[in-house]
Amino acid sequence: MTGPALLAGLRVVELSAYVATPLCGLTLAQLGADVIRVEPLGGAPDRTRWPLSDDGTSLYWSGLNKGKRAIALDLESEEDRSRVADLIVGGGPCVVVTNTERHADLGYETLSARRPDLIHVLLSGRADGGAAVDYTVQAATGFPMLTGAPETPAPVNHVVPAWDVCAGLYLAVGLLAAERHRQVTGRGRSIRVALEDVALATAGNLGYLAEAQLTGHERTKSGNDVYGTYGHDFVTADGVRVMIVLLTERHWAKMLAATGLAAAFAGLAEALGISFATESDRYRHRDVITPLLARWFRRTPYAEAAETLTRHRILWERYRSFAELGRDGGAALRELALFGEVDQPGAGPHQAPKSPIQVDGARLAPCPAPEVGQHNDEVLPMPAEN
Amino acid sequence: MTGPALLAGLRVVELSAYVATPLCGLTLAQLGADVIRVEPLGGAPDRTRWPLSDDGTSLYWSGLNKGKRAIALDLESEEDRSRVADLIVGGGPCVVVTNTERHADLGYETLSARRPDLIHVLLSGRADGGAAVDYTVQAATGFPMLTGAPETPAPVNHVVPAWDVCAGLYLAVGLLAAERHRQVTGRGRSIRVALEDVALATAGNLGYLAEAQLTGHERTKSGNDVYGTYGHDFVTADGVRVMIVLLTERHWAKMLAATGLAAAFAGLAEALGISFATESDRYRHRDVITPLLARWFRRTPYAEAAETLTRHRILWERYRSFAELGRDGGAALRELALFGEVDQPGAGPHQAPKSPIQVDGARLAPCPAPEVGQHNDEVLPMPAEN
Repeated sequence: MTGPALLAGLRVVELSAYVATPLCGLTLAQLGADVIRVEPLGGAPDRTRWPLSDDGTSLYWSGLNKGKRAIALDLESEEDRSRVADLIVGGGPCVVVTNTERHADLGYETLSARRPDLIHVLLSGRADGGAAVDYTVQAATGFPMLTGAPETPAPVNHVVPAWDVCAGLYLAVGLLAAERHRQVTGRGRSIRVALEDVALATAGNLGYLAEAQLTGHERTKSGNDVYGTYGHDFVTADGVRVMIVLLTERHWAKMLAATGLAAAFAGLAEALGISFATESDRYRHRDVITPLLARWFRRTPYAEAAETLTRHRILWERYRSFAELGRDGGAALRELALFGEVDQPGAGPHQAPKSPIQVDGARLAPCPAPEVGQHNDEVLPMPAEN
Repeated sequence: MTGPALLAGLRVVELSAYVATPLCGLTLAQLGADVIRVEPLGGAPDRTRWPLSDDGTSLYWSGLNKGKRAIALDLESEEDRSRVADLIVGGGPCVVVTNTERHADLGYETLSARRPDLIHVLLSGRADGGAAVDYTVQAATGFPMLTGAPETPAPVNHVVPAWDVCAGLYLAVGLLAAERHRQVTGRGRSIRVALEDVALATAGNLGYLAEAQLTGHERTKSGNDVYGTYGHDFVTADGVRVMIVLLTERHWAKMLAATGLAAAFAGLAEALGISFATESDRYRHRDVITPLLARWFRRTPYAEAAETLTRHRILWERYRSFAELGRDGGAALRELALFGEVDQPGAGPHQAPKSPIQVDGARLAPCPAPEVGQHNDEVLPMPAEN
């Protein structure tokens, strides 16, 4: 039994920086793969990225590199690069994950000539090879034009680097699909994902681009409303903000029961000749739904609203800040099976996430991220001349 | 040679709705898996979700179900559910992807008793089994508190359903990791991903939760600035908005060269005793960088700014709307290798995305989504009594 270490025996060499590629490696390491991150001497440039601990350790870096091994070499030296190449092609099935094409001697052509079963996984900014980062991709793809309140017409970027995270996961999907293919055929593959493609594919998969091509309809900002259904945020009598989503007919009926507004909405529906039980009618007529619900929230204290909404199994959540989630040494996180304690050198013990993927209900415990060159001796054979 | 169909021979039965689970199936179908979506008679409830074509076909549904096969059965009837169960366990390696635990006879316990090599992949809202959707998960996890301009203190939800999309990809990663394990051991696994875990894991992986636990620092909104580095949006002389990211020392030097502001910033750096070449100093002192760059943009027409920024290889993009991306029948999309034409019944021909995963530089062409029950006869054996 390997427990949650489904990828035990898979070795991945990662030449990476920033979010997407390290997240790919992290995702595999959390499933038991042996992920070796190769850094230049002194450490990768993203080792200093904010946020930092009080001791100056990058909490961003530690978060994205938990449970990997790390080696540091002079990547400007041909000799050291040949040690990396030997590491990649030596031993069992070999996989490289990278966001750089800088050195041809570490590229797909060269390495796959030595090992036809090499799986080479590359992230680029744009599909044409051009550079891009999450925030520039956001600008190029339309979502910021629809984010935020209608009163603030300027585009609003989302803070979560959604395209980086999705790209890292697409890299992992491509890698594992190629790994399956290799197990069947013995042949490796070149896998490539562009950050901009991830964003455009998502816009296409969700229907935004088909809508823009096929209908005259141009979407506009609608604040925290949820497009095509009923969702809105409300503030309770004691000033607590909650988000409510009424996706189905059952949710709607439950909300009426919870708020005692069935009669009011029945009259309204009759007058307007519509049915609030229908998702599209709830969306089209959200401007008449919201004021009545807002009135109920305004006169209901949070504790009572929470109890009522939960009892009626409404989809709802209170808005929380990161500060609240981290308060008291992560007390709220400690309650969740997702988290476990990690004692990160230079940062200290804290609650860190395991994989969101549960395997037979279990997950590997989180491990600290490695220090610069921590595993050089363990991973690299001694150079020939020693 | 299978070309980009890396998952040829993998059959996946999908009992799903909404975004995450269908996206998992789509992602696998785009790599050549045979994905069979099982719907109730009349079609799944998400078949009517907005946006709709002028003929009333859901462009959302077509987007997320391209290239799958579809069967429709009475899922409230035990007999029809037993046909689904037979479909799952019959034939080669079997994989189920679902977001429902409603019917025990289609659950992991029952099915894996018949086939120990069953891979069962389940999405839930919360890890405790409770319900949640992207917008409620957003509220629970802190990102909306940091999204948008500082002048608008209310939380701003991001429009892109990032947690749904990431969850769908995590499902695919878990599925393929279990598939690798099955090829090695012959045993199947239960894979489970909770939407809320995906959001909290991401907040942890990116350092937000460690920061909140370990430092006193509480992040606040900073509009379209990029945390920890220099990024900002600007408007050109002719009113075009662009996003700029200056991530590295080289980007900074290029921006000074592009704008002719080297002397001005040298004086400023000396006066402040800082170095704008350092990423953290660019972030800390972004309030003095922005006005000088804004002045350059305000007096430079877009065409000239675009040419200059591109020539200096700055990371930048112009903000585009979905309407612009879809204009003229998707002319801009047609230029991209990511897109191909799909003629969707009820919607018409349009540019639809292929997989963002390139395999040896190639991808499968996009296919239309199936109609309700389109593949019943092809997929289901005739019932015994016929």
